[in-house]
Amino acid sequence: SPKSAKKVPLTAVTSIIDGLKKLYIQKLKPLEVTYQFNDFVSPLLTNSDFDAKPMVMLLGQYSTGKTTFIKHLLRSSYPGAHIGPEPTTDRFVVVMNGPDERSIPGNTVAVQADMPYSGLTNFGTAFLSKFECSQMPHPLLEHITFVDTPGVLSGEKQRTQRSYDFTGVTSWFAAKCDLILLLFDPHKLDISDEFKRVISSLRGNDDKIRVVLNKADQVDTQQLMRVYGALMWSLGKVLNTPEVMRVYIGSFNDKPINSVTAGPIGTELFEKEQEDLLSDLKDIPKKACDRRINEFVKRARAARIHAFIISHLKKEMPAMMGKAKTQQKLIDNLEDVFAKVQREHHLPAGDFPYVESFRERLGGYNLDKFEKLKPKLIQTVDDMLGYDIPDLLKNFSNPYD
Amino acid sequence: SPKSAKKVPLTAVTSIIDGLKKLYIQKLKPLEVTYQFNDFVSPLLTNSDFDAKPMVMLLGQYSTGKTTFIKHLLRSSYPGAHIGPEPTTDRFVVVMNGPDERSIPGNTVAVQADMPYSGLTNFGTAFLSKFECSQMPHPLLEHITFVDTPGVLSGEKQRTQRSYDFTGVTSWFAAKCDLILLLFDPHKLDISDEFKRVISSLRGNDDKIRVVLNKADQVDTQQLMRVYGALMWSLGKVLNTPEVMRVYIGSFNDKPINSVTAGPIGTELFEKEQEDLLSDLKDIPKKACDRRINEFVKRARAARIHAFIISHLKKEMPAMMGKAKTQQKLIDNLEDVFAKVQREHHLPAGDFPYVESFRERLGGYNLDKFEKLKPKLIQTVDDMLGYDIPDLLKNFSNPYD
Ligand SMILES: Nc1ncnc2c1ncn2[C@@H]1O[C@H](COP(=O)(O)OP(=O)(O)OP(=O)(O)O)[C@@H](O)[C@H]1O
Ligand SMILES: Nc1ncnc2c1ncn2[C@@H]1O[C@H](COP(=O)(O)OP(=O)(O)OP(=O)(O)O)[C@@H](O)[C@H]1O
Ligand SMILES: [Mg+2]
Ligand SMILES: [Mg+2]
Repeated sequence: SPKSAKKVPLTAVTSIIDGLKKLYIQKLKPLEVTYQFNDFVSPLLTNSDFDAKPMVMLLGQYSTGKTTFIKHLLRSSYPGAHIGPEPTTDRFVVVMNGPDERSIPGNTVAVQADMPYSGLTNFGTAFLSKFECSQMPHPLLEHITFVDTPGVLSGEKQRTQRSYDFTGVTSWFAAKCDLILLLFDPHKLDISDEFKRVISSLRGNDDKIRVVLNKADQVDTQQLMRVYGALMWSLGKVLNTPEVMRVYIGSFNDKPINSVTAGPIGTELFEKEQEDLLSDLKDIPKKACDRRINEFVKRARAARIHAFIISHLKKEMPAMMGKAKTQQKLIDNLEDVFAKVQREHHLPAGDFPYVESFRERLGGYNLDKFEKLKPKLIQTVDDMLGYDIPDLLKNFSNPYD
Repeated sequence: SPKSAKKVPLTAVTSIIDGLKKLYIQKLKPLEVTYQFNDFVSPLLTNSDFDAKPMVMLLGQYSTGKTTFIKHLLRSSYPGAHIGPEPTTDRFVVVMNGPDERSIPGNTVAVQADMPYSGLTNFGTAFLSKFECSQMPHPLLEHITFVDTPGVLSGEKQRTQRSYDFTGVTSWFAAKCDLILLLFDPHKLDISDEFKRVISSLRGNDDKIRVVLNKADQVDTQQLMRVYGALMWSLGKVLNTPEVMRVYIGSFNDKPINSVTAGPIGTELFEKEQEDLLSDLKDIPKKACDRRINEFVKRARAARIHAFIISHLKKEMPAMMGKAKTQQKLIDNLEDVFAKVQREHHLPAGDFPYVESFRERLGGYNLDKFEKLKPKLIQTVDDMLGYDIPDLLKNFSNPYD
């Protein structure tokens, strides 16, 4: 019943994100810990997961203007930024707000509990030495963190072996990011094999991808049409979505548009496109907040189902004899277990984890050691979903709305 | 030896096409007839196959401006032309040169020996009643024949069943055509299921396809970029070629470009694109002549290989006993037969017909009735390829060069 759960007092919530953070610790985390949700599905959330600013990642061939793009938005360079015609940025750089200008090496960043990058340690020290955090006080960085990346290689250059799992890293960032900008320039349209792998690594985050056709003022209108057409032609083949990707056509740097080649309409078009991209960027914090709430609710639902499965397995274990045999039988017939749990608690089948991977995970556990169903823990999460979160949204509407 | 074959006297040749026509009758046709090339591979050529003007076919959804496009190029309407906002052109119309203005119904056209449309009788009277030949005296039509087509259907309209094999017909024309223009307009980008089937029916003729984004002045520059991008995105998926299709962006009608929406650069771009398309069209007669020569040479080579295969099969047949058994063995081991023929006459393996379809064809024949190898017939074709055709090209260079 709603009365059974103590509501998080609204006065204690300074923002939606703060509210979620508190709800997590008081109401969801206990359930996750009890049924080892973190071992099976996803690590426990830390404060830094809640506090992290929305992230925008830039990807593209070398020299397409990724670093210049960030510099242009900030209207200033960032510590450690390098701009130049050859492949220049040789590392992943997280550009974020901070009290003063400094660069922190990747090995240090990854162990800092107040930063959401500890997951990157899995990519090894070879990666961490190519990872850096660049901090500076900046009004835009108070709302958005940028991720600058080393240029994607093409042609002969692809032969140079990366010392770390490049697409693994882009995939990791893609999941954490709120927007992914793919940069092209009229002379670098080629979608190389590495670029194709990078695009594949973004799978599941397609809705975050936008394309920028940069340096559009370097060619005349007819050439631009050919270049843009060719880009869409090959992107359509590589990105496997029927929806057309939004492409921003323009020149994203501090120099005025080259109106000699672009002409008056080109200049007007590029200015409109730049405005559109800017307003898309301005929307990010709002969208990121909505996304957080959405993901939090999804997580709570998953943790709830997980608790039902684990406690059901425990319940099926015999009190005394034949434990090993029963455990094996339960694991073998996991489909039936899922079906039973689903019926018993009226759960949507689509929300259940993949049977196969769950079965594999179970192999390492003693089912007898699992926790019994604790209805109070479930009730707390139900109340959180049914009352606390709606209250939170009512009282603290999205601060960016 | 070169002396053995009587050369076609050059004085008798009024043009390259005339030369090819005569060479065909005197030197290639006898070989084709002797070894039944026409039954196995391709019907014998008739004069009308040589005399036909280069053809340009227009395809696209209804109301994209196909009929208007032809009218625009002719700077006049053609007999029977209908232009309007609803699906108007309800038939395939061949617009060709003729002494006076008239429309000839499809049933009549198909039986005329001096016209290259007899192959269309295979599509039945239901089609022939939706086929028409429109003639008029016109300088452009002296060099190019246009094929206007009924609009490709989309959405609900696709439910209306065609009374004939629409894509069979587009495929037939695609093989005979020298250029295929796919028309789109900014409000009709949708590539419907019927349109996809039409595009598939063009397979093997991809190099002839060009795309026209018509009525480009009906939207502003930013919208045009979206529309054009979306078109390339989906075309890239549908047309399975890595090479980007050339798209002409403009407004192909007699009215001046709508410079209010298009703006000065739009107007300039469209004018440039119209010029490009026009010069592409002007190139057709020259390219068509080159294509004819090329196809003629390819045909001669194929007929030569065919003669070697057929005569080899005849040679392998026993004089008296076990004919049926040997025939079966030869057909079963056709791969070996091909390999032997290839080695014996030093032929490129890639020029051989598909074993499977050839095997199927052979089933209906008595191999014993095939002709023996007649070296003189082969020598005549070799001389034609080695001396007559090069002479022809030297003395009568492409009239459009
Ligand atoms: N919009 C633009 N118009 C013209 N030139 C540009 C533009 N943006 C960047 N450049 C130039 O292109 C070159 C590459 O820029 P930059 O270093 O920002 O690219 P990058 O994508 O970060 O390359 P890398 O992957 O090597 O780090 C520089 O010379 C820069 O001045
Ligand atoms: N370039 C253009 N700009 C603006 N309007 C155009 C243009 N071309 C054609 N139209 C208009 O579009 C409509 C359809 O034109 P038209 O009949 O030539 O198309 P169609 O492709 O032949 O159609 P259907 O497949 O039905 O025969 C007409 O109203 C015509 O005036
Ligand atoms: Mg860079
Ligand atoms: Mg028409």
